[in-house]
Amino acid sequence: MTTAITVHQVRRPAPGLPSPDDFALVSGPLPETTEGTALVENLYLSVDPYHREVMEEDPLHQPLEGRALGRVVSSRLDGLHPGDLVFHRHGWRTHALVSEGEYSLLPGWEGVPLRTRLSLLGGTGLSAYVGLTRIAKIQPGETVFVSAAAGGVGTAVGVLARLMGAGRVIGSTGSPEKARRLVEDFGFDAAFDYHDGVTERLREAAPEGIDVFFDNVGGDHLAAAIDVLKPHGRVAWCGAIAQYNDPANPPAAPYNLYDIVGKSIRLEGFLVRDYRHVQEELEEFLVPHLRSGAAVPAETVVEGIENIVEAFIGVLSGKNIGKMIVGTGRE
Amino acid sequence: MTTAITVHQVRRPAPGLPSPDDFALVSGPLPETTEGTALVENLYLSVDPYHREVMEEDPLHQPLEGRALGRVVSSRLDGLHPGDLVFHRHGWRTHALVSEGEYSLLPGWEGVPLRTRLSLLGGTGLSAYVGLTRIAKIQPGETVFVSAAAGGVGTAVGVLARLMGAGRVIGSTGSPEKARRLVEDFGFDAAFDYHDGVTERLREAAPEGIDVFFDNVGGDHLAAAIDVLKPHGRVAWCGAIAQYNDPANPPAAPYNLYDIVGKSIRLEGFLVRDYRHVQEELEEFLVPHLRSGAAVPAETVVEGIENIVEAFIGVLSGKNIGKMIVGTGRE
Repeated sequence: MTTAITVHQVRRPAPGLPSPDDFALVSGPLPETTEGTALVENLYLSVDPYHREVMEEDPLHQPLEGRALGRVVSSRLDGLHPGDLVFHRHGWRTHALVSEGEYSLLPGWEGVPLRTRLSLLGGTGLSAYVGLTRIAKIQPGETVFVSAAAGGVGTAVGVLARLMGAGRVIGSTGSPEKARRLVEDFGFDAAFDYHDGVTERLREAAPEGIDVFFDNVGGDHLAAAIDVLKPHGRVAWCGAIAQYNDPANPPAAPYNLYDIVGKSIRLEGFLVRDYRHVQEELEEFLVPHLRSGAAVPAETVVEGIENIVEAFIGVLSGKNIGKMIVGTGRE
Repeated sequence: MTTAITVHQVRRPAPGLPSPDDFALVSGPLPETTEGTALVENLYLSVDPYHREVMEEDPLHQPLEGRALGRVVSSRLDGLHPGDLVFHRHGWRTHALVSEGEYSLLPGWEGVPLRTRLSLLGGTGLSAYVGLTRIAKIQPGETVFVSAAAGGVGTAVGVLARLMGAGRVIGSTGSPEKARRLVEDFGFDAAFDYHDGVTERLREAAPEGIDVFFDNVGGDHLAAAIDVLKPHGRVAWCGAIAQYNDPANPPAAPYNLYDIVGKSIRLEGFLVRDYRHVQEELEEFLVPHLRSGAAVPAETVVEGIENIVEAFIGVLSGKNIGKMIVGTGRE
C-alpha cells in the first residue's frame, strides 16, 4: 500500500532560523477522494522564505501548505482526469486532494522542464516579472540592482532584467563565493558580498548610478540604493522583505529617506498575489526564451520529501543559489 | 525719479528661522534696458518656504530671486510691449530686467485676480495639482490627507482635491485656530493640530483609512499616514519637505516603513520644476472654477516690499493661512 507523507509544524519557532524539531513528518494512508475532489500525487514542492512567516500564524499539527506540481491519480472532479498535470497550493506533502478553483492545469510546454513552473514560470519568476514591469517599469539600457540576488527571486530578476534589455545587472549576496557564481554562472555583470559594505561596492559597480533597485531585503541596502539611485529612479519592494525580517524588530529605516524627494524617487511595495492575472503574460514572454536556452532558471533541487525541512532551513540561511525545489522522486 | 528697491541677503542664516538682520533693502536707480531686454515693474512677489533653502546657497549681496508678476514699462525685446503683464522669476525687487526665455505673457483671465497666478494658478497650485494627478493619481471618492494643510500648497491641495471629487479631505496644521479655519473657511472635512498626536487624530478623522497622503512635512506624519493608509494607498512627497527640514538633521524615518510592502503602498517624491509643462492643463482645469467661485484661493497678501522679510519669516513660522504674496502697491 502506498503511504502519504505530510509535513506538520509541531511547535512555534524561536526567533531567527527554525529548528528541525519544529517539524514532524507524518505518514498515513492516501487521502480518499470525495465527490468534487481529485487525488494528486505531488512531483515537486516549492520551499520559500515566506514559509518562515507562515510558521508564526498557521495552526500546529496540520499539514503545511505550499505551491506544488503534481499528477492526478484519481478524480471525482469534472475537468480533471488521471494523468493530468496540475499546479496547486497543497504542498509539503506527497499526496493532496484538490477541489474546483484550487488548481491550474499545466499546459506541458515542450522542451521546458516541468519544475520550471515553480521557479521562473512560478510565483518566484512572477514576483521578479511584476516588480520589473509593473512596479519599476524597467526601460532598455537601464542599470538594475537587486538584493538577495542569489535567492529564487533575486536570480529571476537577473535573468528577466537581462531579457528585458537592462544595460547592467548588479547583485548583492551574502558570500564572496555566491557573488562569484552570480557573475560566472548566472549572467550578472557585477555582484558583491554585502558584508564588504553595500554603498561602496554598489558605487564601484555602478559609477553612473542605478535606475532600478529590486529589494528583497530592506535595511541598509535601501540607504545604499537611495545614495546611488539616479534622479527618477525606482525601488520595487518585494513582499519577500517581510519574510527576511523579524516583524517584531524591523530593520532601521534609512537615514537618507528624504532624499527620495530631491531625487524624485518612487518607492513601491507589492505582493505577488495581487498579480496572478499576469501569469499568462509571463509565460508568453518567457517560454520562448526557455526553449531557446536564452533563459536558464537558477534552481537548487533536493530529492526526497524527508529532506524538505533541511532544504527550508538552507533557504533561510542563504546556503543555496536560486529557487529551492524539493522533488518527491515521482516524476 | 523712481527708485528701484531690491532685497539682498547679507549673511548666512543661523539654523532655524532666519533673522531680519540677514537681509537688507537696497535702493538704487531703475535698471536700464539693453538690446534684448525689457524693464518690468513688479506688482506681486511670491514668498515661499523654498527661499529658506536658497539662503544656504545663493551668493550674498545680490538681489534675491523669486517668482513675480509685473507690467512691462519699456522694452527692447521682440514680443514684449509696454503694458504687457508677465510672469517671471526675478522677484524680491520692485523692478527687473527680463530677456528672451525668462518670462511668460499672462493671458489676463477675466474675472480672475492677477495675483492668482502666484497662488492656485502658480507654482503652489501646480505642486498640488501634480501631486494629486501625476503622483497620487487621485480617484473620485477617495480620502485625502495633507500635512502643513494651512500653507500655500496645503490649502491648494484641499481646494483641488475637492474639485477632483475627493470623498473626504483631512488636514493637519500647527494650531487649533488654523485647524478650525481650515474646516470653516477652506472646505476641509476635518483638520487637527498635529501637537495633539497625528496617528490618533488621523484615525478619528478617517476611521476607514486614507487613500492618499500629500506630505509637505516628513517626519512623524509619514509614520501616522502609513498606519492609516489603506492597501494600495499612495504618498506624494512634495519638494517642500526639503525646505521644512534642516538638511543636516533630517527627521527620523518612520518606524513602520516596511509596512509599505504589506500594504502595497507607493511613496513618490517629486519636484514641481519637472512639471512646468502641466501649467496649461492646470489653467484649463482651474480657471472655470475660479470664475464660478467654486475654487477660492487661500492667500495672505502683505502690502509693501519693505514688509517682505517679515512676511517670509511668517511663512516659515506658520503664522499665516494660504499662499503668501507681497504686493508692491503698483497694480
